[in-house]
Amino acid sequence: MFKKPKGTRDFTPLEMKKRRIIENKLRNVFDSYNFKEINTPTFESFELLSKKTGEDIRKQLFVFKDHGNREMGLRPELTSSVVRFYINELKNLPKPLKLYYFANCFRYENPQAGRYREFWQMGCELIGSKYPIADAEIINLAMDGLNKIDMDYEINIGHLGVLRGIFKEFNLSEDEELKIRRLIDKEDYKGLENYLSEIKSSDELRDIIFKILNSKGDKSVISDLKEVLKDYPTSIEAMNNLEEILEFVKHDNIVVNFGIARGLDYYTGMVFEIYGKKEGARQVCGGGRYDNLIELFGEKPTPAVGFAYGFDRVMLNIDDFEVEDESILIIPIKKDKKLLKECLNIADVLRKSGKSVEIELMNRKLNKALNYANAVGINKVIIVGEQELSKGKVSLKNMKTGEQELVGLDELENI
Amino acid sequence: MFKKPKGTRDFTPLEMKKRRIIENKLRNVFDSYNFKEINTPTFESFELLSKKTGEDIRKQLFVFKDHGNREMGLRPELTSSVVRFYINELKNLPKPLKLYYFANCFRYENPQAGRYREFWQMGCELIGSKYPIADAEIINLAMDGLNKIDMDYEINIGHLGVLRGIFKEFNLSEDEELKIRRLIDKEDYKGLENYLSEIKSSDELRDIIFKILNSKGDKSVISDLKEVLKDYPTSIEAMNNLEEILEFVKHDNIVVNFGIARGLDYYTGMVFEIYGKKEGARQVCGGGRYDNLIELFGEKPTPAVGFAYGFDRVMLNIDDFEVEDESILIIPIKKDKKLLKECLNIADVLRKSGKSVEIELMNRKLNKALNYANAVGINKVIIVGEQELSKGKVSLKNMKTGEQELVGLDELENI
Repeated sequence: MFKKPKGTRDFTPLEMKKRRIIENKLRNVFDSYNFKEINTPTFESFELLSKKTGEDIRKQLFVFKDHGNREMGLRPELTSSVVRFYINELKNLPKPLKLYYFANCFRYENPQAGRYREFWQMGCELIGSKYPIADAEIINLAMDGLNKIDMDYEINIGHLGVLRGIFKEFNLSEDEELKIRRLIDKEDYKGLENYLSEIKSSDELRDIIFKILNSKGDKSVISDLKEVLKDYPTSIEAMNNLEEILEFVKHDNIVVNFGIARGLDYYTGMVFEIYGKKEGARQVCGGGRYDNLIELFGEKPTPAVGFAYGFDRVMLNIDDFEVEDESILIIPIKKDKKLLKECLNIADVLRKSGKSVEIELMNRKLNKALNYANAVGINKVIIVGEQELSKGKVSLKNMKTGEQELVGLDELENI
Repeated sequence: MFKKPKGTRDFTPLEMKKRRIIENKLRNVFDSYNFKEINTPTFESFELLSKKTGEDIRKQLFVFKDHGNREMGLRPELTSSVVRFYINELKNLPKPLKLYYFANCFRYENPQAGRYREFWQMGCELIGSKYPIADAEIINLAMDGLNKIDMDYEINIGHLGVLRGIFKEFNLSEDEELKIRRLIDKEDYKGLENYLSEIKSSDELRDIIFKILNSKGDKSVISDLKEVLKDYPTSIEAMNNLEEILEFVKHDNIVVNFGIARGLDYYTGMVFEIYGKKEGARQVCGGGRYDNLIELFGEKPTPAVGFAYGFDRVMLNIDDFEVEDESILIIPIKKDKKLLKECLNIADVLRKSGKSVEIELMNRKLNKALNYANAVGINKVIIVGEQELSKGKVSLKNMKTGEQELVGLDELENI
């Protein structure tokens, strides 16, 4: 028997309905911030996808050669694609450019709760503004979205400039910096200790790094850390930047956390992560500022900031909810071609008025058709008989109460 | 510079907006017929995808090996996936099952108008009913969708049982039958002549096949052909079936065409194709009955009928339309952090009331920000100044007329 590929999912009608409801609520929030939806190809050149993506993600790429022997990969995230699109076609548009997407991504993960080989991201990129208000809009949008769908979460906000200011003073290479950021991102503090010894870092550097990593709490964390890092001007500048950003963030329930390093290598300034409070799907959102990426891809330096929700993890983190079935089944009272055509006519009118209507398509007797309505949860049934029809009426049966009444054809649009 | 892969597309905000508008109109029609949306993985095992897909499509598959060395392919269409899903998880649900999807598909095509390597299909499958009313519902739905979006089209409906009845009488092998169907599908009548000579078919067979292929017109075509084929009982049965189906089709503007063979090998009964009337994107929809496919995939025989729109071709076949920009830009009258925060507060209220709002994010002076509004087509601008604000008011500027008026903060939700 054929099976779906490992780590992928089929979505049943009920699952899809719920996903669409949540998707549309989140879309409405992106729309309310006047972000505009775009779309890019599902696969891209391997070269693009591997350019500035973290090592871990690169190993997880689904790669193939097209019939022209070009190496392609299924996108593991969207930011690289959006930046490519920006450079190819959008770079001359007035700034800021505010773009969002809802798209499937692919990573060869070991399947587990909230991790799939095909998964959906809904995210946005704000291109062209370097100002703290832009960072804040992105944070506000990310939080407003989750508030709209009543998700319980914790947001942690940090700034890569703090650590970078330290690396700069201690003259670390870009490579050393990346390795350290990756160990931090994995919360592998033991590995970090080892690596720092390996590169013969000073005790001072080690102490400062761990001081920064342990700086987590409310906004007062920033002023405390400013005291500690007063001799590191780039770090101070980063903290001032973060303070200004946070002044524009509407919500108070944020956690300042300088231990956030983000798995993707392209972030440069403010970074944030949002964690769901349910088990099995911790991080539901990540984002931040990436002012170097567009330049790295060959265009003139352009500031940018964005985030993405892991849509599947969002779905795992919200409370389940009921979806009401509002559909109507129309049944001819007996097997008769003429009556079936009358059913079609009635269905046509109701469908055009926006109702969800099906006709008995299985040539069943009335009782069996009613059983079907019961089994699939259709509550309203219209029974069409010759006699009633000659008086311009049909029977309307409520499957929950069992009540049945005669209704005029002209009243059907209001049932 | 990085480029998008050949044959794929990026969609700009305006294109996406138009696509979503048309998508949602079509969705509403599927919903009105009480079809339920599902989703399946973007890639499937190569074995599944190549099982009953036409030879041409098989050659166009994007194939890759996953990290477990399993051969996978990007789906070239959805019916195989839906049938797999049905067999895996849905087969015990009450019948009929009415499923629809909107999904991207992949074929290695030579790029040309309306043909892309990544393209979208919106389609449905009605599983479990063998009755003509089910075929008719599928045709009605396909036509209602295109009527809803005001597309000009021609629908051609045929029945594979007519040719099959002939093949049966002349004892053609399944392989010969498939080859003939493919030549018909390509409208390669010269190749068909050659192939019929090659397999040494009788003149009688050749004459009948070409008589059938040339049978095209209004419903009277069926009665005429019945006369010709009166000695071929299976063919007569097929035409009776088609007549009954057409009795349930609401629309009159259909063309009966027995030359339709469909590119996919899995159809068994009624088949139809819809052609757009604009140049460059002829076929916009195809579908029909496939009663053997579920059995072929290893489940008990189950009748099924469905269709898919080529969504991109639909987009090429409708008249272009305007999309109104309803968004609002809020600008502080001067660069001032406190004023900017007031802008945020006003934006927050308006966004929650469902409006699309952006704040000046570039730290521009008023005039430059107004230029931006003009450049991107934002018609409504709110200017926030301290003096007006102290009286509970802001300025509302209409960018089209240039008019500006003072408006109370409590009136903003109605602008």
